Amino acid sequence: MRKAASPFIPLIPINRKSGRPLHRQIYEAFRSTIVEHNLNCGQQLPSTRTLASELGISRIPVLNAYAQLLAEGYFETRAGAGTFVSSSLPDRATRSERRETSSIKIASGPRRISRASVLLPPYKRAPWSRRHGAFSAGQPALGEFPLKVWANLVVRHARKPVARSLGYGDPMGLKELREVIAVYLRTARGVRCDSQQIMIVSGSQQALDLSARALLNVGNSVWVEEPGYWLARHMLTAAGCRIVPVPVDAEGLNVEAGIKECGNARLALVAPSHQYPLGVTMSASRRLQLLQWAREAGGWIIEDDYDSEYRYESNPIASLQGLDDSCRVIYIGTFSKVLFPSLRIGYVVVPLDLVDHFLAMRHAMDVSPPYLYQAVLTDFIAEGHFARHIRRMRVLYSERRNILVRSLEREFRSLWQVVGDKAGMHLAVSMPERFDDREIAMRAARESLWLWPLSPSYMGKPAHHGFILGFGSTTAAEIPGAVHHLLTLMDTPRNAISATGTATRPGIQ
Amino acid sequence: MRKAASPFIPLIPINRKSGRPLHRQIYEAFRSTIVEHNLNCGQQLPSTRTLASELGISRIPVLNAYAQLLAEGYFETRAGAGTFVSSSLPDRATRSERRETSSIKIASGPRRISRASVLLPPYKRAPWSRRHGAFSAGQPALGEFPLKVWANLVVRHARKPVARSLGYGDPMGLKELREVIAVYLRTARGVRCDSQQIMIVSGSQQALDLSARALLNVGNSVWVEEPGYWLARHMLTAAGCRIVPVPVDAEGLNVEAGIKECGNARLALVAPSHQYPLGVTMSASRRLQLLQWAREAGGWIIEDDYDSEYRYESNPIASLQGLDDSCRVIYIGTFSKVLFPSLRIGYVVVPLDLVDHFLAMRHAMDVSPPYLYQAVLTDFIAEGHFARHIRRMRVLYSERRNILVRSLEREFRSLWQVVGDKAGMHLAVSMPERFDDREIAMRAARESLWLWPLSPSYMGKPAHHGFILGFGSTTAAEIPGAVHHLLTLMDTPRNAISATGTATRPGIQ
Repeated sequence: MRKAASPFIPLIPINRKSGRPLHRQIYEAFRSTIVEHNLNCGQQLPSTRTLASELGISRIPVLNAYAQLLAEGYFETRAGAGTFVSSSLPDRATRSERRETSSIKIASGPRRISRASVLLPPYKRAPWSRRHGAFSAGQPALGEFPLKVWANLVVRHARKPVARSLGYGDPMGLKELREVIAVYLRTARGVRCDSQQIMIVSGSQQALDLSARALLNVGNSVWVEEPGYWLARHMLTAAGCRIVPVPVDAEGLNVEAGIKECGNARLALVAPSHQYPLGVTMSASRRLQLLQWAREAGGWIIEDDYDSEYRYESNPIASLQGLDDSCRVIYIGTFSKVLFPSLRIGYVVVPLDLVDHFLAMRHAMDVSPPYLYQAVLTDFIAEGHFARHIRRMRVLYSERRNILVRSLEREFRSLWQVVGDKAGMHLAVSMPERFDDREIAMRAARESLWLWPLSPSYMGKPAHHGFILGFGSTTAAEIPGAVHHLLTLMDTPRNAISATGTATRPGIQ
Repeated sequence: MRKAASPFIPLIPINRKSGRPLHRQIYEAFRSTIVEHNLNCGQQLPSTRTLASELGISRIPVLNAYAQLLAEGYFETRAGAGTFVSSSLPDRATRSERRETSSIKIASGPRRISRASVLLPPYKRAPWSRRHGAFSAGQPALGEFPLKVWANLVVRHARKPVARSLGYGDPMGLKELREVIAVYLRTARGVRCDSQQIMIVSGSQQALDLSARALLNVGNSVWVEEPGYWLARHMLTAAGCRIVPVPVDAEGLNVEAGIKECGNARLALVAPSHQYPLGVTMSASRRLQLLQWAREAGGWIIEDDYDSEYRYESNPIASLQGLDDSCRVIYIGTFSKVLFPSLRIGYVVVPLDLVDHFLAMRHAMDVSPPYLYQAVLTDFIAEGHFARHIRRMRVLYSERRNILVRSLEREFRSLWQVVGDKAGMHLAVSMPERFDDREIAMRAARESLWLWPLSPSYMGKPAHHGFILGFGSTTAAEIPGAVHHLLTLMDTPRNAISATGTATRPGIQ
């Protein structure tokens, strides 16, 4: 590829009526731009010919100005390459100074932000989510992704663009992709849907946000799972909702407890296939109870099916949406876990009578999804690569899970209870109350073990301390060593792991 | 590429404790799924071996079930290809029936949607925006885009994925992209910024939406340009803002009128470089007035710089943001017009003290932007293709604009006044009041001329009737004919164009 010199034309305000000669105006414009560091050191400059033509003036004043700037050391020439902002100008020193004097010159007067901004917790990465490696959660085995197949499909579409691939697309998403997703959801997930109900979004989070905006008002009550997914809670907080934490037990969300707490909630957000973080699967009777509540109370249910593709031991479990006879379930899925996160493709299955509202809202939010990856994903699914990848990964994750469970049993015996290992890419362990999961996770992160503590997933007092252990991106060979490492890390005088005998066995009731 | 048979495994609930034999359970599961059309006619089925292994049962009952389904005509085999759902089953007939009985079985009980959903106008494509061709607005010359260069960059990144290209990215966007955009904005647009203030979003609309959510509350007053950009207004409507239309004249937004109408607005949304739809450029004195208002009233300004790359005749005009000493301007740009819309990449330049709020909000909205196109765009800019493309297009659009202006003058003489032709990819024409622009646009669309009428861009009574004429995607050769076509279309007895002599010349005052 030719790396041709094609720098941007700087903004130079030429005023022909001014008394100052043109070469002087050009000189001063460049000098002040360089002094204020709006041109970087070493940045290439347009040729005198190009600049003169862009400014619509003769080349003479431009040549004069360049000569002056070269003479004063603002510019430098490199043989055969052209003219550049001098790379020897002091940079760092004056840069921070400039920041303070120009960029951060914050005015007097109020800096009023929205109530949503005030309510929203700041974005920060916890110590245990900074890197990837043993036990990091939500990470698929990216090394096992069929990158070559995928790249071939990308190349195919990049080389043969069709006309519609460049313009604005359908706000619902690419029709062909919605059709193959509909087939997949009907066949493999028991979702009742047609492609016209499916909207392509950038992932679960946009799906949640879109649903909240289409359905919820400030002050509406919303059931969330306790413990539950923090980022969904943040989004609902920003939306001004009243968040009602409803406890999760071994059967999933405790619907009765929810009704007792707040029977007239507008919406319930659940992950019935594989709850986050506990990993439990909602029982059939709870599913029916929840649907009955929604029907009677006129509530909505968001079913977040973020990693249900992988199920071990038992058969796959049909979606809640598939049981719903009153179209009260909004079903959400994503390709972030089953393919890769930076793909940014997910979907919402919207009850038919709500499609127009979701469509108008999505259009006002971000118009339509980008084209290329939608087309690539369509082929990836239609040509069978997707189904094959899921099957391969199910075998791989099943092996990793088995080794993890066995290693935990061997090292921790009855101290830890393993839950939620029947599906997905993580399981949870709960441990006696005297352990502080957050403190241990901090310590583990310093030794490159990435444990997500359970307690921050609770809004109220944590019913359990423990960890979320991801096994998606941890190889079978790494697991036993990492679990042993974890044991040594916990076995400090303070934590007194030798006191196992007297510890009450914790349990998700 | 091998098109291997790799169908999804259907959900089959196997109950070992049930009295019914396994083969019967499998048979019934398939039959009811097919009858309910959750499996499509002609869809491939897993092999008996695969299914038996997935269900964790012996192959015998699966073989029995398949034999029965084949015998009854639900399945069919194709030599060498496997087993499929019979393609001869009645499809269409029962399909619509199913829709009514299952998918659209809407329950009794309220279907409560959000206030935002109620306020938001429905999404529909106007007749003049359905296709592309002469005068369609907002359409770049996609045929001139250097697709081959772009495809080579896509292929380069697709074939050599780096580890971080698959995982979740920075919610601010790719660092390298933000850096090259910062250089571009400082150099060519006079924006004062560092890369840490730049956030990559999916386009102007997401930038607007994000800014509104970070800064505005329900009930806040917002100045919008009258006439102005409808989709931005829709988004603010959904946010529950009180929309204050402020008239636009030949100098841009009339700041004094805005202050008189609502001095304590929380935000002003403007497109000072090339207003939509009138195409006027905000004068220097109005810019200073607007900044002064913002400083004194504690208001925010969103500068929507959607197509300012192209300027004809005069020199480029520095951004409003560059004049702002009190960090009250949020600067928004997009690559949709200068590259292509389906790219879905835009950016926001956020005042430094607001960056954390924008970051938290963006993360709660959709986590982070997709990777591939960010990386490709970084190279496209860094290797000079971007600057070169802009320069080529400026020449091309300038030519198209000149021909359009000349053709309009020749055909319409003094009947139409041309405005906003100094920049961008569209100009506006205003015409005497007796013409109904919406009606003419409807008629034109039937003859494949895509005129956007001006009057729907007004919230109140339209001050002008006329059209937005895009020249980005209309070739120089097409323009004269299309303008003549337009004249014949208008010259009906009803519109009486021959009355030109007596018509008062319209004008943007």
